[in-house]
Amino acid sequence: MSHIALRCTRCGAGHPADMHTLACVECFAPLEVEYRNGGARQAIPLPVHETSVAAALGDGGTPCVEMPWVAGLLGLRSLFAKLEYMNPTGSFKDRGMAVMMAVASEHGVTDVVEDSSGNAGASVAAYATRAGMRAHVFVPKEAPRGKLRQIAAHGAEVHPIEGAREDVTAAAVAFQRDRGFVYASHNLSPYFQEGTKTFAYEIAEQFPDGLPDHIVLPVGNGSLYIGAWKGFRELVEAGRVPRMPRLHCVQARAFMPVVAAYEGIPWGPDDAGSTVAGGVAAAAPARLEQVLGVLKAAGGAAVAVDDADILRWRKLLATREGVFIEPTAAVAFAGLERLADSVIGSDETVLAPVTGFGLKDDTPV
Amino acid sequence: MSHIALRCTRCGAGHPADMHTLACVECFAPLEVEYRNGGARQAIPLPVHETSVAAALGDGGTPCVEMPWVAGLLGLRSLFAKLEYMNPTGSFKDRGMAVMMAVASEHGVTDVVEDSSGNAGASVAAYATRAGMRAHVFVPKEAPRGKLRQIAAHGAEVHPIEGAREDVTAAAVAFQRDRGFVYASHNLSPYFQEGTKTFAYEIAEQFPDGLPDHIVLPVGNGSLYIGAWKGFRELVEAGRVPRMPRLHCVQARAFMPVVAAYEGIPWGPDDAGSTVAGGVAAAAPARLEQVLGVLKAAGGAAVAVDDADILRWRKLLATREGVFIEPTAAVAFAGLERLADSVIGSDETVLAPVTGFGLKDDTPV
Repeated sequence: MSHIALRCTRCGAGHPADMHTLACVECFAPLEVEYRNGGARQAIPLPVHETSVAAALGDGGTPCVEMPWVAGLLGLRSLFAKLEYMNPTGSFKDRGMAVMMAVASEHGVTDVVEDSSGNAGASVAAYATRAGMRAHVFVPKEAPRGKLRQIAAHGAEVHPIEGAREDVTAAAVAFQRDRGFVYASHNLSPYFQEGTKTFAYEIAEQFPDGLPDHIVLPVGNGSLYIGAWKGFRELVEAGRVPRMPRLHCVQARAFMPVVAAYEGIPWGPDDAGSTVAGGVAAAAPARLEQVLGVLKAAGGAAVAVDDADILRWRKLLATREGVFIEPTAAVAFAGLERLADSVIGSDETVLAPVTGFGLKDDTPV
Repeated sequence: MSHIALRCTRCGAGHPADMHTLACVECFAPLEVEYRNGGARQAIPLPVHETSVAAALGDGGTPCVEMPWVAGLLGLRSLFAKLEYMNPTGSFKDRGMAVMMAVASEHGVTDVVEDSSGNAGASVAAYATRAGMRAHVFVPKEAPRGKLRQIAAHGAEVHPIEGAREDVTAAAVAFQRDRGFVYASHNLSPYFQEGTKTFAYEIAEQFPDGLPDHIVLPVGNGSLYIGAWKGFRELVEAGRVPRMPRLHCVQARAFMPVVAAYEGIPWGPDDAGSTVAGGVAAAAPARLEQVLGVLKAAGGAAVAVDDADILRWRKLLATREGVFIEPTAAVAFAGLERLADSVIGSDETVLAPVTGFGLKDDTPV
């Protein structure tokens, strides 16, 4: 790992780039990847030495398609959906996983432990077995059947855990410590986080005549949100794009730590409820401070949406635009409906990622 | 449709390029698209006037990834999988559907009738609703749940039919005649057939230093097989590639009309059994003559494989290569195992399409 180090996102302390350090030893905040040489040798700075390895399952390169029906309904000039579900395991998680597992492979890791509501679990299971590693995946017992089938299909060791999402994490951490395995947490790993920024680089390629004015993202732990910002920031700093799009954050009302902070409303993990959008059910996201920093830096707004609206938008996208998505992916569009009335001007263009495939979740549309 | 006509694949009779003519009025054989100007104005000759419409859901552009574990097991120099399941609805069918539905849209069609074991049904449901059309999809009652969920999600009218696959087709045809709707059969439509050839054009782009020596495909009705050949033939004729890869055909043993003809064994629809690979369960493929013509022209071999081998390969790909596929997609790899012992040399490269996503089929891996 000659070209990178890890840097604390809060206090700035430096750490060696290994597979075990997931938080700052000084202040316990999450870490991010820093490039010793500015990453200048790579078209997209990434913490892997052979970038071909990162694309070994064909992740990224997802299409952007117009959503004319939705644009018409909401009075938008134009709306693009970046179909992130067209990644190898059916969700955007593959972007981060490809990079994290490539780094793990370079470190000679044999066993990885992960906890996930489903998509990251399916992704780690696929990439681990491809790299010749064993994956131990801790999942909520009530995770969608499709995701559980997918994790098991790849031969991962599946550990269904009863209780809250935090209990799943606790069980994974205890297991990992007990066995001495690597905790390949997609929420904590700076490599996973770094991998998601390819999302921004692709958008810059796909919109050579001008970036969308707004990007609206579903935010649970916020990896894609942070990754999008980091990618665009690098592109702006390198002079490859003139400006940063505004990055807006949408959460399920039952899990709204970012929205609460944005609106100045008191909210804590005890206020969490339940939601159909399991992928954003994060009551205490590890990178909350970072997300709030991005929200400010990227001129974003944060809105919360109800399950009824999430399911209504899931159905609208499937029946009007022909795009079949899981409920979590519909969160962005339910939020867009609210943002279209306020922060988005009628002469502006919008992009939203479609983060997960409809077949992931058996909930009828 | 100024730049195209339809041509009988058997007797060569010409027909107008409308949405209703699905077979030759002289000899009842299927039709293919012919370009009046040689299609020279388009990078890929297609029967649509605005090619952007055809890509409206982001179909095509699927990645090729190496399969090093399988290559090692079978003693191949290198094996590439083209991940066709990374199409918008999770199968290669979107290539043909995008073109057929774009043509239907140019003709002002409002209702389409289709019969499908599942993947084409999901695809027509998605593209139809996007184009503002109603889709009436006839499916076998025992089709995989995932595919039925997906068809219903797009708001299509689903008609589950009991009996053999032929009964499903008969019900669709009767319904379509009764209502005067367009029968948008992916097995018969020359536009659907034409759309699949983008598969070959992409391979030519993805292998600029030399095409794979062999391409091994699962064959039911044979649309991808015929489309691959037509694409490569056009590329050879245009001088864009030096030669045609050999195109091999793999069928499930319970549905092996092509293999039987290749081996000179008597076989008829009454000999059909059952298979886990629903996508190749075609006892009397409409384009059988064409498939046999391609087999000869492309120097292909044809082999039949058992369900046990199909399921074994599905599991190997999921657990060794990290690629989660439906049983039909595993047919190609079960066939490759047999071809690797015979027609494929140890210094040659091979490509196989991965035609459908694992989540399409609830059968455990």
